[in-house]
Amino acid sequence: MNEYFYKCFNCGKEFSNVLIEKEFHYLCPECGTADKNKPLTGVLEVVYNYDKLKKNISLDKFLKNEPGKFWLYPELWPLEFLANEEIIKGISNEKLERLALNSSSFLKFNFEDYPIIILDETRNPTLSYKDRASIITAIKCIQLGVKEIVAASTGNAGSSLAGICARLEINSHIFVPKNIPDAKRIQIQSFGANIYKVDGSYDDAFDLCLEVSSAKQWYNRNTAYNPLTIEGKKSAAYDIFISSNGSIPDIIFVPVGDGVILSGIYKGFKELLSLGWIEKLPQFIAVQAEGSNALVRYLESGQFEFIPANTIADSISAGAPRNLFMAADAIKHSEGKAISVTDDEIISAQKIVAQNFGILSEPSSAAAMAGYIKLKNSNKISKKDEILLLITGNGLKDTNSLQGWNVSPEGLSYNEWLEKLEVK
Amino acid sequence: MNEYFYKCFNCGKEFSNVLIEKEFHYLCPECGTADKNKPLTGVLEVVYNYDKLKKNISLDKFLKNEPGKFWLYPELWPLEFLANEEIIKGISNEKLERLALNSSSFLKFNFEDYPIIILDETRNPTLSYKDRASIITAIKCIQLGVKEIVAASTGNAGSSLAGICARLEINSHIFVPKNIPDAKRIQIQSFGANIYKVDGSYDDAFDLCLEVSSAKQWYNRNTAYNPLTIEGKKSAAYDIFISSNGSIPDIIFVPVGDGVILSGIYKGFKELLSLGWIEKLPQFIAVQAEGSNALVRYLESGQFEFIPANTIADSISAGAPRNLFMAADAIKHSEGKAISVTDDEIISAQKIVAQNFGILSEPSSAAAMAGYIKLKNSNKISKKDEILLLITGNGLKDTNSLQGWNVSPEGLSYNEWLEKLEVK
Repeated sequence: MNEYFYKCFNCGKEFSNVLIEKEFHYLCPECGTADKNKPLTGVLEVVYNYDKLKKNISLDKFLKNEPGKFWLYPELWPLEFLANEEIIKGISNEKLERLALNSSSFLKFNFEDYPIIILDETRNPTLSYKDRASIITAIKCIQLGVKEIVAASTGNAGSSLAGICARLEINSHIFVPKNIPDAKRIQIQSFGANIYKVDGSYDDAFDLCLEVSSAKQWYNRNTAYNPLTIEGKKSAAYDIFISSNGSIPDIIFVPVGDGVILSGIYKGFKELLSLGWIEKLPQFIAVQAEGSNALVRYLESGQFEFIPANTIADSISAGAPRNLFMAADAIKHSEGKAISVTDDEIISAQKIVAQNFGILSEPSSAAAMAGYIKLKNSNKISKKDEILLLITGNGLKDTNSLQGWNVSPEGLSYNEWLEKLEVK
Repeated sequence: MNEYFYKCFNCGKEFSNVLIEKEFHYLCPECGTADKNKPLTGVLEVVYNYDKLKKNISLDKFLKNEPGKFWLYPELWPLEFLANEEIIKGISNEKLERLALNSSSFLKFNFEDYPIIILDETRNPTLSYKDRASIITAIKCIQLGVKEIVAASTGNAGSSLAGICARLEINSHIFVPKNIPDAKRIQIQSFGANIYKVDGSYDDAFDLCLEVSSAKQWYNRNTAYNPLTIEGKKSAAYDIFISSNGSIPDIIFVPVGDGVILSGIYKGFKELLSLGWIEKLPQFIAVQAEGSNALVRYLESGQFEFIPANTIADSISAGAPRNLFMAADAIKHSEGKAISVTDDEIISAQKIVAQNFGILSEPSSAAAMAGYIKLKNSNKISKKDEILLLITGNGLKDTNSLQGWNVSPEGLSYNEWLEKLEVK
């Protein structure tokens, strides 16, 4: 077992991993609260013995790891590893292979003569970034000897958990709000998850999921609530570091809804700093939809205010970002900022990502590009900056958004086409 | 330039690559015909100097190649390679990296206690097998100095070409029939291809595409018609060979519509045989939808008969398989067979692939699993056989097919769920 403990992000108290995991705590046992329409308090962070890790991990060896198979570096996960042929206790290597993320996710492009790097998460096992969190939590569930894993979801987290569980041959239970988009529901159900449609909001599904998992001692993967969701999402920092052979981008654009991806990737880079492998953090730009920009407002005013979210980008639609405080911390400590973009800007960016880079992205992912364009157009980007955009989910998860700007052309007859194309 | 020539599959005549490529021939200049509602005749095959290749390629070195980046083994493609830092003439390595297929496509599962290997093509750049053909033809187009590339398509081939061209920064033109499914049209358009909707059938779109490309000297990627589509599709054989470290499966299940995937993968294994790296061919099982089984009927009767196709599996729907004769040859020479499965069997297999393996597949891909189940249930599979199924396209390309067996559950209130789940 790796050496690690849990630390509360709010009160700072530290807890042994035995206490937290054996008693199925997720939030801080002292101050944690999960209230409706509010960010969570008492989110726990996994802390390792970085001084010891520093001595035990060789940077050269680390950089030889394959991107997209983050479980291959065992020192950095709160899991049980083995020294023999099976890498991770309880899970065959054959099963682990099924979890591999897109290994060619680190792609270089040019946009209007500016270089740009895309981290393409649209080709992960269930075609989104959420797989990083699902993989770590599902492995943990198996190692805890629990046979059922649950999550509340409006879409991608649920289909991710369902798909990863199908690959690992364990059962998943997904609690969804009544208004879940049909396409997302179908993805969850297709993978054979048990689905529970709650006559209420995402918050209701979240609460019900907590109550059921607690009563039945099922393992809970609710985003932000389970600290390993943040831990899993840190893995992208390592993949970026390996893919760029030990260097890091200057600026990273992250679409932000509940704030867990931002918190996770920030934690990954913070760890690289603790290990002495990088000298400074990249700057994080949180991009939010104008109709769902609680983080932007929180950073401006210092106050959280609940405003029901309203945006086309459903994966970053969050009136009360669960992990608001940790996300705000990532922005402050990286000297970054949070900005808003309109739904129109998001759709226009979705078109650019598809046509210029050949990547179909969900509106929520395209928000990163919309934010980049916004800063670039106001001359806040230099050609010398190494820029990375997180593209977090595949556009085919939400074809409605593509429908709007791809109107069906009129059909012409064979001869009409010949004439129009000036082929006599 | 690699040493290779073109050989007609029907009349056996050989042609220099200079003649074929500089004059923009695709079919055999002597006997080639592309008639409506008939298979093509005079399909050309790329032939290399295998004796020379045998001497020049080391098996050990070859097996160290990374799966999913088939352009890294330059000896086996009819393209111009360079010895300096740029691998392929005319295309930067940065662009080539964008084309990488799913590198973790070779996955091992168990199904009802029988081992099974899935070649998972659902996470390629545009989420289908077609990318293999689009990549090779698009590179060829660039090397020929042509700026426009065209294809007729009912869906996946078109979106594949459009997506690959966006990544390579070249223009694509896709000719589609009037009845193209909306979801497929949207994928093609999203990538910025020029789309031409023809008031007619796929055959009409095919003919129009030939006429326009010929008149305008645009490069034509029509499936089967352009011999490099078969060539690109052979690459899966090499990926399988590398992923299994130099061994090959006993039986391969291939969904068959126009017959190009089967012809391609068969050619790849035939080359492995010519290179002396394997001792026998795997056995190929062509799986067709009952409502589109021209190959099954041709192998039984020795006669091609046109019957309009009618199946839910639109990617293998072909009344007149363009590459029928080459596909039939693959079955005969591998001592394989062609079988039909019903649409119901296909949908049931789609469910199994999603729920047991965590892979969303198109109906056409699930046909491979349906064929496997059919043979297994009639005791024609032994546990000792190493079985591989090609899963050729992602289910999110056609969510209509998933909708049928994933009916929306009734919503219950919070308290009703607690009661139903026996949480007090």
